[in-house]
Amino acid sequence: MARTRLYRDGTLVLEDFPVADISDHLADPSSVVWLDLCMPGPEDFAMVGEEFGLHELALESARNQGQRSKLDHYRTHEFLSAYALFVDPRSGRLSTSEIAAFITPRALITVRKDDRFDLEALVARWDESPDLTRYGVGFLLYGLLDHLVDGHFEAVHAMDDSIEQLEDLLFQEGRRQIHAVQRRSFVLRKSLVGLRRVVLPMREVVNSLMRPGTHLVPEPLLPYFQDVYDQVLRATEWTESLRDLVTSVMETNLSVQANRMNLIMKKVTSWAAIIAVPTAITGFYGQNVPYPGFGKEPGFIASSAVIAVSSVLLYLAFKRKDWV
Amino acid sequence: MARTRLYRDGTLVLEDFPVADISDHLADPSSVVWLDLCMPGPEDFAMVGEEFGLHELALESARNQGQRSKLDHYRTHEFLSAYALFVDPRSGRLSTSEIAAFITPRALITVRKDDRFDLEALVARWDESPDLTRYGVGFLLYGLLDHLVDGHFEAVHAMDDSIEQLEDLLFQEGRRQIHAVQRRSFVLRKSLVGLRRVVLPMREVVNSLMRPGTHLVPEPLLPYFQDVYDQVLRATEWTESLRDLVTSVMETNLSVQANRMNLIMKKVTSWAAIIAVPTAITGFYGQNVPYPGFGKEPGFIASSAVIAVSSVLLYLAFKRKDWV
Amino acid sequence: MARTRLYRDGTLVLEDFPVADISDHLADPSSVVWLDLCMPGPEDFAMVGEEFGLHELALESARNQGQRSKLDHYRTHEFLSAYALFVDPRSGRLSTSEIAAFITPRALITVRKDDRFDLEALVARWDESPDLTRYGVGFLLYGLLDHLVDGHFEAVHAMDDSIEQLEDLLFQEGRRQIHAVQRRSFVLRKSLVGLRRVVLPMREVVNSLMRPGTHLVPEPLLPYFQDVYDQVLRATEWTESLRDLVTSVMETNLSVQANRMNLIMKKVTSWAAIIAVPTAITGFYGQNVPYPGFGKEPGFIASSAVIAVSSVLLYLAFKRKDWV
Amino acid sequence: MARTRLYRDGTLVLEDFPVADISDHLADPSSVVWLDLCMPGPEDFAMVGEEFGLHELALESARNQGQRSKLDHYRTHEFLSAYALFVDPRSGRLSTSEIAAFITPRALITVRKDDRFDLEALVARWDESPDLTRYGVGFLLYGLLDHLVDGHFEAVHAMDDSIEQLEDLLFQEGRRQIHAVQRRSFVLRKSLVGLRRVVLPMREVVNSLMRPGTHLVPEPLLPYFQDVYDQVLRATEWTESLRDLVTSVMETNLSVQANRMNLIMKKVTSWAAIIAVPTAITGFYGQNVPYPGFGKEPGFIASSAVIAVSSVLLYLAFKRKDWV
Amino acid sequence: MARTRLYRDGTLVLEDFPVADISDHLADPSSVVWLDLCMPGPEDFAMVGEEFGLHELALESARNQGQRSKLDHYRTHEFLSAYALFVDPRSGRLSTSEIAAFITPRALITVRKDDRFDLEALVARWDESPDLTRYGVGFLLYGLLDHLVDGHFEAVHAMDDSIEQLEDLLFQEGRRQIHAVQRRSFVLRKSLVGLRRVVLPMREVVNSLMRPGTHLVPEPLLPYFQDVYDQVLRATEWTESLRDLVTSVMETNLSVQANRMNLIMKKVTSWAAIIAVPTAITGFYGQNVPYPGFGKEPGFIASSAVIAVSSVLLYLAFKRKDWV
Repeated sequence: MARTRLYRDGTLVLEDFPVADISDHLADPSSVVWLDLCMPGPEDFAMVGEEFGLHELALESARNQGQRSKLDHYRTHEFLSAYALFVDPRSGRLSTSEIAAFITPRALITVRKDDRFDLEALVARWDESPDLTRYGVGFLLYGLLDHLVDGHFEAVHAMDDSIEQLEDLLFQEGRRQIHAVQRRSFVLRKSLVGLRRVVLPMREVVNSLMRPGTHLVPEPLLPYFQDVYDQVLRATEWTESLRDLVTSVMETNLSVQANRMNLIMKKVTSWAAIIAVPTAITGFYGQNVPYPGFGKEPGFIASSAVIAVSSVLLYLAFKRKDWV
Repeated sequence: MARTRLYRDGTLVLEDFPVADISDHLADPSSVVWLDLCMPGPEDFAMVGEEFGLHELALESARNQGQRSKLDHYRTHEFLSAYALFVDPRSGRLSTSEIAAFITPRALITVRKDDRFDLEALVARWDESPDLTRYGVGFLLYGLLDHLVDGHFEAVHAMDDSIEQLEDLLFQEGRRQIHAVQRRSFVLRKSLVGLRRVVLPMREVVNSLMRPGTHLVPEPLLPYFQDVYDQVLRATEWTESLRDLVTSVMETNLSVQANRMNLIMKKVTSWAAIIAVPTAITGFYGQNVPYPGFGKEPGFIASSAVIAVSSVLLYLAFKRKDWV
Repeated sequence: MARTRLYRDGTLVLEDFPVADISDHLADPSSVVWLDLCMPGPEDFAMVGEEFGLHELALESARNQGQRSKLDHYRTHEFLSAYALFVDPRSGRLSTSEIAAFITPRALITVRKDDRFDLEALVARWDESPDLTRYGVGFLLYGLLDHLVDGHFEAVHAMDDSIEQLEDLLFQEGRRQIHAVQRRSFVLRKSLVGLRRVVLPMREVVNSLMRPGTHLVPEPLLPYFQDVYDQVLRATEWTESLRDLVTSVMETNLSVQANRMNLIMKKVTSWAAIIAVPTAITGFYGQNVPYPGFGKEPGFIASSAVIAVSSVLLYLAFKRKDWV
Repeated sequence: MARTRLYRDGTLVLEDFPVADISDHLADPSSVVWLDLCMPGPEDFAMVGEEFGLHELALESARNQGQRSKLDHYRTHEFLSAYALFVDPRSGRLSTSEIAAFITPRALITVRKDDRFDLEALVARWDESPDLTRYGVGFLLYGLLDHLVDGHFEAVHAMDDSIEQLEDLLFQEGRRQIHAVQRRSFVLRKSLVGLRRVVLPMREVVNSLMRPGTHLVPEPLLPYFQDVYDQVLRATEWTESLRDLVTSVMETNLSVQANRMNLIMKKVTSWAAIIAVPTAITGFYGQNVPYPGFGKEPGFIASSAVIAVSSVLLYLAFKRKDWV
Repeated sequence: MARTRLYRDGTLVLEDFPVADISDHLADPSSVVWLDLCMPGPEDFAMVGEEFGLHELALESARNQGQRSKLDHYRTHEFLSAYALFVDPRSGRLSTSEIAAFITPRALITVRKDDRFDLEALVARWDESPDLTRYGVGFLLYGLLDHLVDGHFEAVHAMDDSIEQLEDLLFQEGRRQIHAVQRRSFVLRKSLVGLRRVVLPMREVVNSLMRPGTHLVPEPLLPYFQDVYDQVLRATEWTESLRDLVTSVMETNLSVQANRMNLIMKKVTSWAAIIAVPTAITGFYGQNVPYPGFGKEPGFIASSAVIAVSSVLLYLAFKRKDWV
C-alpha cells in the first residue's frame, strides 16, 4: 500500500490520502507532497512517471535492483539511490535494503525495493522537527538522508562491537576459538567490503546537494545538510579504521597460531624425549648379552634407578625451560 | 563480411547494403551510416581511411592488437578502443575481445579484431530504443558503450559468483579443497588484474565524452551517457571490492591451513604418546633382569594392566583437551 | 562548576565571576569572555544557546558524545569539536577526552564532555603569552588548539616510546616475550587507529581557520596558527610512520617465530636420532637369534661400543651443523 | 665517433658530416641538425655547450650518470633525460641504458652514456616517416620518444612473459621448483621496482611536451605525441598490473608451501603410526612374562596375525583419509 | 664559535669577523652576510633575534629539537628547518643532524643543533660557484639546499647498498644468515621510515621557493632550484623503491624459511623411517615366541638380511625423491 502526506505552508494537513488525489493537491502551489511506494509494479511506475514527468532512465533505475548509491540530476527532477543497512549483531553479517527517491520541486517520491526499510522511523524523524517543515521538499530530503546516514553509522557501530568481541576471542585458548576468529573475521571483512560500497558514495551524494548553485537545498537548511555530511565523513573514516582493525586481528591471529604451533612442537619434543629415554634404557636391559646385572636383582635395581633418574631429570630440565 | 546500416532522419532505411554505396548514401546530409568490419585486411583499412578521412594513427591503432581502452580525439573524428569481456563461469578465467571504433559526425565504423564480440546483441540494443535514433551517431555510440559496459558489469558479476563459490570451499575439509582454493583464488586474482585493466580506463573514456564543449553528445543524450558512466563507476567500485574479497579469501586460507597444521600436530603428539607409553612398558617387561613378576603369571597381569590403564588414561586426557 | 574569564582591551580583568553576569560584561564592546562548562546539563545548554545565539545543531553536537574532530561554520559563530589524548605509558593503550567549543566574535565557550581534560594547563598556556591577549577570541582559540595539538604530539611521542620498547623485546628469547610482542603490537595498532582518527581531521580544522577570507584569525596571529598547523602535520606524519613501524614489528615477529620453529624442528630431529639409534642397536642385541656374541661377554662389549660410538658420532655431526 | 644528420626544408640532405661543420650548416635558417655523441669527454661537452648555448646545469646532467627521467626547461632549450630498457628473457633481470638529449629550436643533440642504446633502430624509426620530417626538431624528438617508449613497452611485455613462466612453475611439484619460484619472483619484483622508476616519470615528460603554450610540438604533431602518451599510460598500467601479479604469485607460493607442509605432516603421522603399532605389538610379545602363547607356536601365530591385521587396517584407514 | 662571511657586490670580502660587526657591515646596502651558530645559547638567540628582527616563533623553532623539515614564511624573513642524514654503512642505521636557517633579504643565518653537520663541505660548495655569488642570499640558500639534498641522496644510495648486501644474504644457507636478514631488514625498514620523514617534506620546501610570486629566488637561479628539486624527487622516488625492495626481501625471507622448514620435515620423516623399520624388525625377532628361526643361525641371517635390505631400499627410495 502506498503512503502519502500533504504539507501546505509548512504544516502537515493530510495523510494517507489516495494516490489519485495527488494531482488535485498539487494544483495548490503552496502544497508539498510525499508519496511512498513499496515494491511498485510497472503500472505504478507508469503512473508516477506521467504524473510527475519523470525521466525514463530514472524510472528504470528505480525499477532495477543493485544501483550504486548516487544522485542523478535530470532536467526537472533529481533521482536518489541509497541503501539502508542492517547488521546481524551475532555474526556481524551485513544486509542491505535498497531505496530510491525522486525529488521534484514540490514532491518527494520514495520507492522501497523491499519492505525491510523502517518507514515509521523515517516518518517519526520528520515529525521531530516541525519547525523545519516550511522548507518543503528540501526538509523531507534532509530527513530521509539523516535517517539513512544515521542507520549507516549505527551499522558501523554494530560492526565495531563485533570486532571488539572478536578481539576478546583472539588471545583465548581453545580450538573452537581459532575457528571462530577465522570465520568471523572473514565475515567481518566481507561485511566491511559491502559497508564501504554503501557508505563511501554517500559522500558524493550529500556533497553534490550542498554545492553552491544547486537550488535544491534552501540556505537555512545548509547547516543541516552539513551535519549529515559530517556524519557521512565520520562513518567513512570509521569504516576505514575498521578495515585496519580487522586486518590487525587477522594478522595477530596468524601470529597467535604460529606461536601455538611452536608451543606444541616444544611439548612434542619434550614428552617424546621423556618417553624415548626410558625405552632406550629398557632396550639396553633387554639385550641377550651378559651386561652387568644380567638376570640378577642388582640389574633390575640399576635399570629402575636409571629410568627413574633420567625421566625425572629430563622432566625438570624441560620444566625449567618452560617446555612442558 | 562487412555489415552496414543507413539511418535517415532518425529511422533505419537500409541494412546490409554494399560498402561501396556508402559514399552515395552520405551525400544526403540527413543520413547516418554504421559500418562494421570484422578482422579487416589492409585494403579495407585503406578504403575506410580514404572514404572517411581517418588519421593514419587511428587506423594503425585499429590495426594493432592490445590497445588501451581509450578515446583519442583527432581533428575530424574520434577513435575509440575498448574490450568486450567473457568470464568462464567454472574457473573464473577472464578472456577479452578487442573492438575499435571511428566516430565521425555522420558515421560510426566499428572494427572487431576477432569474431567473439556479440554483434547481434549490439544491433538488438540499438533497435530497443527507436525513439533515440534521431540523435544519429551520438545514439549509436551510446548503444555501443552501453552494450560494452553492461558486458563489463556482467563479467564483474560472474567474477563475484566465482568468489562466492570459493568462499563456500574455504571452510570445507579435505585435501582437494585447499588445492582448489589456491588455484582458483590465483586464477581469480589474475582475472581481476585483467578486469581492472579493461574497466578502469572506461571511466576516462565515458567521462571525456560528457565534458562540456564536446559536441559529440547532444544534450538530450547526456542523461543516457551519465547512466553509462554510473554503470562504469559501479563496475569499477565492485572490481575494487572483489580484490579485497579475494585477498581476504587467500589470507583466510593461509590461516585455515595454519590451523589444520596445528590440529594435525596435536593428533600426532597424542597418538604418538598413546603408542609410545605401552611400548615403553613392554620394554620394561622385556628386560632380562628379575623385575617383580619376571617370568610369572602376576607379571603378565601387571604388565597388561599397566598398559591398558595408561593407554586409556592418556586417550581420555587427550580427548578432554580435544586433541584426538 | 563553570569557569569564566573576562578580558577587556587585551588584559584579564575578572575571573570566575558568575555565569549570570556574562550579559552585563558583554555589553561593553571591548570585552571578551571565556566560559567553560564541564559536563553541562540541558538547562546549561539552553542558557548558553540563548545567551550567545547558538545554532541548535551546534548545541546538539556539543551534547552528543563521539563527534568527529571538526570545525563547523554557522552564520554567527563557529563550532569546534576535538579530542585530548592520553596514552598509558605501560601498555600503549590510548584513551580520549572529548571537548567542544563555540566561537563567537567575542566569546569562547568550551564544553568538556568529561573531567579528564587538563583545564589548568590550558589556562596556564593562555597566561604564558600576555602580549597576544589583545587579539581576543582568536588568541583564546589559538591557545586552545596549541594545547590540544601539543597533547596530540605528546601522545604520538609516547606511542613511539612504546614501539621502541616493543622493538627491544623483538629479538629476545623466551616464551613470554612472543606473547608480549603479540599482545602489545595488537594494542598499539589499535591505539594507532584511534590516534589517526583524532589527529588526521585536525589538519582540516586548523587549515580551514587559516584560509583567506575567514576573519576569525587576525593577520598577526596567522604565524601562530601556521605553527600549530606545522605541529599537526608533524603529528600526522609521525603517526603514519608509527603504522609502518608496528607493521614491521609484526612482520618481523612472524619471521622470528618461523625461525624459532625451524630451530626447534632441527633439535627434535637431532635428539630423536641420537636416542633412536641406540634403541635400534639394543633392539638388535635383544633378538632371540644367535647373533655373534649372543649371550656372551664380547656381545655386551660390542653392543656397548656400537651404542657409545654411534651416539657420540651423531652428536658431533649435529653439533657441527649447529643443530643441537 | 659522433654521428650527424642535416635536414633542410624537411628532407635529409647530409649525413655523418664533421661536427665542426655544424655552425656553417645552421647558418641556413631552414636547416635542422641532429648530432649524436656517445660517451663524450669534457671537451665534447665544452664544444656543444658553446656551439648551441647550452646551460651549464643541463650539461652537468648530461655528464652525470643516474639522472631521473625528466624534461627540464631552460630559457633557450630543453633537456631530456631518459632510459632504454633491456630485459634478460631467461631470468627476467632488467638493465638500463641512459640517454640524454638537448633540444634547441633547430637541433637535437643526443648523448648516450654507454653504447648499449640501439642507435640504428632510432635512425630507421626516423626514416620510416619521411612525410613528417618537415616538422623539424619536433619530429626528431617524437621519433626518439616513440622509440624509447616502444622499448619500455617491450620490456613490460618481456616481464609479463617471465611472470607467465613463473605461474606455470607455481603448481608444479618438486624441490627445485619452489626454490626457482622464490628466486625468480624476487628478481622480478626487483626488476619491476626498476621498471617503475623508469616508466612512471615518462608520463610527466611526454605530458609536459603536449601542454598548450609549449611551442616545442607543432600542432599537426600533437596526435603523434598523444599516441606516445597513450603508450606510456599503457606501459604504466601494465607495470602496476605486473606488481599485482608477482605479489599474487608470491602469496600463492607461500600457501602452496604451507599446503605441502601439511601433506608431509600427514604422511609422517600415518607412516609413523603404521610402523609404531607393530613395534608395540612385538614389544608385547618380547616381554619376559608368561603371556598367552609365551614360547609356543600359537603365540607366534597370534603375534603375526595382530601385526598383519593392524598394519593393513591402519594403512587402509589412512588411505581412505587420503593421508598416505 | 660562530662563523661569519661578508659578500659585497657578489664577491667574498671578509670572513670570520666578529658577530658584533654585522650591523656595521649591513649598513652598506650592497653587502650580504652569512652567520653560522652552532648550538647557540639563549643570549645568542636574543642577539640575532633583535639584530635581524626575527619572529619569536621562528626563534623558538630554531631553539627546539625535532622540527619538521619545513619552510615558514614570516613578514620580513623566512625560516627553514631541515636535516642532514648519516647512514652507518655496516648496519644501515640512519642518524640525523638537525639544522635551521633564517633567511632575510640580505642575510643567511644557519643554526646547527649539534656539531655533526659538515660545515666545511657547505662552505666548499659555495666557493665552487663564484659566478653565482652575485645573487646574494638566494645563492647562499641554493648552496645550502643543494648540499643538504645531495646528502639525502647519498643516504638513499648507502641504504640501497645495504639492501643489496641483504639480498646477497637472502639465499645463503646457515642459521646465522636468517637471523642476520631478520635483524638487518628490520633496521633498514626503520631507517627507511626515518628517511621518508626527512626526505618527503623537502619536496614542499623546495617547491614553495620556486612558486611564482616568491621573490626569494632571482629568476636566473630558478634552473638551479629546479635542479635541486629534481634531486629531491629522485631521492623521494628512490626511497619509495627501497621500501618495496625491503618488503620483497622480508617476504622472500619468510618463503625461504617455510621452504627450509619443509626440507627439514622431509629429512625428519625419511630418517625416522630408516631407523624405525629396523627397530620394528629387531622387535619381531626379540619376541619370546617360536617364530621361524627362533634361537637358530638362519633366524639371525634372516633378521640381518631383512634389516639390511629394508634400510637400503628405504634410503634409495627417499634419495630418489630428493628427501635425504
